[in-house]
Amino acid sequence: MEILKKAMEGIGVLDEVSMKRAQERLDSLTKPRGSLGVLEELAVKVAGIKKDVFPRINNKVVVVMAGDHGVVEEGVSAFPQEVTPQMILNFLSGGAAINVLSRHEGAKIVCVDVGTAADINHPALLVKKVKKGTDNMTKGPAMSREEAIKAIEVGIETAWEVIDKGAELIATGDMGIGNTTPSSAILAVYADEPIENLVGRGTGVDDERLLKKINAVKKAIKVNKPDPGDPVDVLSKVGGLEIGAIAGCIIGAASRRVPVIIDGFISTAGALIASKIEPKTVYFMIPSHVSQEPGHKVMLKLLGLEPMLHMNMRLGEGTGAVLAMNLVDAALKIIKEMATFEEAGVSKEL
Amino acid sequence: MEILKKAMEGIGVLDEVSMKRAQERLDSLTKPRGSLGVLEELAVKVAGIKKDVFPRINNKVVVVMAGDHGVVEEGVSAFPQEVTPQMILNFLSGGAAINVLSRHEGAKIVCVDVGTAADINHPALLVKKVKKGTDNMTKGPAMSREEAIKAIEVGIETAWEVIDKGAELIATGDMGIGNTTPSSAILAVYADEPIENLVGRGTGVDDERLLKKINAVKKAIKVNKPDPGDPVDVLSKVGGLEIGAIAGCIIGAASRRVPVIIDGFISTAGALIASKIEPKTVYFMIPSHVSQEPGHKVMLKLLGLEPMLHMNMRLGEGTGAVLAMNLVDAALKIIKEMATFEEAGVSKEL
Repeated sequence: MEILKKAMEGIGVLDEVSMKRAQERLDSLTKPRGSLGVLEELAVKVAGIKKDVFPRINNKVVVVMAGDHGVVEEGVSAFPQEVTPQMILNFLSGGAAINVLSRHEGAKIVCVDVGTAADINHPALLVKKVKKGTDNMTKGPAMSREEAIKAIEVGIETAWEVIDKGAELIATGDMGIGNTTPSSAILAVYADEPIENLVGRGTGVDDERLLKKINAVKKAIKVNKPDPGDPVDVLSKVGGLEIGAIAGCIIGAASRRVPVIIDGFISTAGALIASKIEPKTVYFMIPSHVSQEPGHKVMLKLLGLEPMLHMNMRLGEGTGAVLAMNLVDAALKIIKEMATFEEAGVSKEL
Repeated sequence: MEILKKAMEGIGVLDEVSMKRAQERLDSLTKPRGSLGVLEELAVKVAGIKKDVFPRINNKVVVVMAGDHGVVEEGVSAFPQEVTPQMILNFLSGGAAINVLSRHEGAKIVCVDVGTAADINHPALLVKKVKKGTDNMTKGPAMSREEAIKAIEVGIETAWEVIDKGAELIATGDMGIGNTTPSSAILAVYADEPIENLVGRGTGVDDERLLKKINAVKKAIKVNKPDPGDPVDVLSKVGGLEIGAIAGCIIGAASRRVPVIIDGFISTAGALIASKIEPKTVYFMIPSHVSQEPGHKVMLKLLGLEPMLHMNMRLGEGTGAVLAMNLVDAALKIIKEMATFEEAGVSKEL
């Protein structure tokens, strides 16, 4: 609890002075005011986060949090649980989508086992296991309150470690067979919509499994009665270890004023928990894509985030978030490298 | 007319065999089927265009077509016409948004004066002027039929030149004060919607100028009666020289089986003309962003293209199209570099 408390105390607000200067600079550049839309908003936001109109982002890291889910007993996933450790090894040997896209975007991958059911040994894996997978949330809480806090604190500490090693931009990622089900359950606690609208096909389940997912979410909420006013209660009862660690990673990044790009459905569930623990964390979040998972739009709306990429993706791992790094880079180059009206001798508006 | 005829004869269809192989390869990679959404669709499309499952794209070019518009007499733009040559010089000295973003994406800029009202001399500018700006389309045709064909052929020849020099991926761009007005007029010919819904604020005009734009489009259509069945007639009566050249650039790229990324409202007006001249050109188009201009969504829908980037941009120049180059690169790396289930020892679906 000490780590979470310390992190929360460190979270400030965006720096208005830097944001105003950034906006003035953008308005002096050779383009109609505001015509670069979200690229301009990104430049202003990052200026507000970093307290610097021309911040540099050279060192980018995607943090992939991995955990398993007892709820897979209910037949909610199309893949067997053994795929969680198999995919982690795939990440560590460079063959997964997140590896390809991270190399493409110049980002480093940090993979953390915060709660897989397996024993994975690999020199590049950070093992910070809180529990060997959650319990089946349709029968009781997914984890204890203490374990939920520990998972969050694993995320905070991981963020601090990668920032201490130089990370200037963090993207969140996830791995965990079955983890769209707890993500839907977390969303169901906060969204004012029927559960049917908040549960999707995840990695691509058929109608039968989709029905099992809907029923699992309904049962988990009925059995556990998570308290919307207490986000740690929600996380412990119907969440996941990697979702808690993602929430923590966001809290940790925010406490150090490092912008954090939020990936898809699972990462955004973590972001939702983070925002309920400390609403100021949203200032430090950068949205990336909107996933094919129907509840993702609802989640992003709850957070007030507008996705930039509409790629119909539904893979997780951080794949959408790393693709958005290119747009953050582009925004920072725009504010820094474009000529002003004066420099270029271009006439202003009539 | 010879060049256009020759180009049209060269336009084929997507290669089904390569697309099938690309899809099989994608389905063998360590991710749920289809979970990378549009990235997978891009990989399949480019395979179909290049007849190669693992095509390389090292040499990228954004072609910026510039022209002026007689309709600015009607007070449709917030910027004076002198900004067209001023911005071209800005492109040529590296200070505009398109320069920053092209450097960021590793693309070369080729700028063509196909119809500005000014005399611009610069060693890096391709001067292929058909006419010194269009005539005021509210009083008669913007240009003659012969000039419209010439503008298209300038675009075709430019595409062929950059492809001969190695271009493997082309993005379209535009510069021309006043050019959202003819773009709206072209759209109005093909869209089944009131003109009010198809005219936007362009670079950011106020209510008074917006009304002038709507009236100019209405008048241009009433005075000229463009024939929807004859796209060259539409282009000549209510189009623009750079819009014709963009249409030509797309036709030229398609004839050489080079994928062409379509930028915002003006570029998509060119794409619409290209698709009406030869529907097969659409196979070779890759959409990029959806602009803040309200008619852009309607245009993209007419073409059956789904934008990937939702950035609320409205600058033109090719800025949205070059941002999408990163996504094309990402798609080609995914299909090439990801491990298969077999290679990585990952279990498949249950």
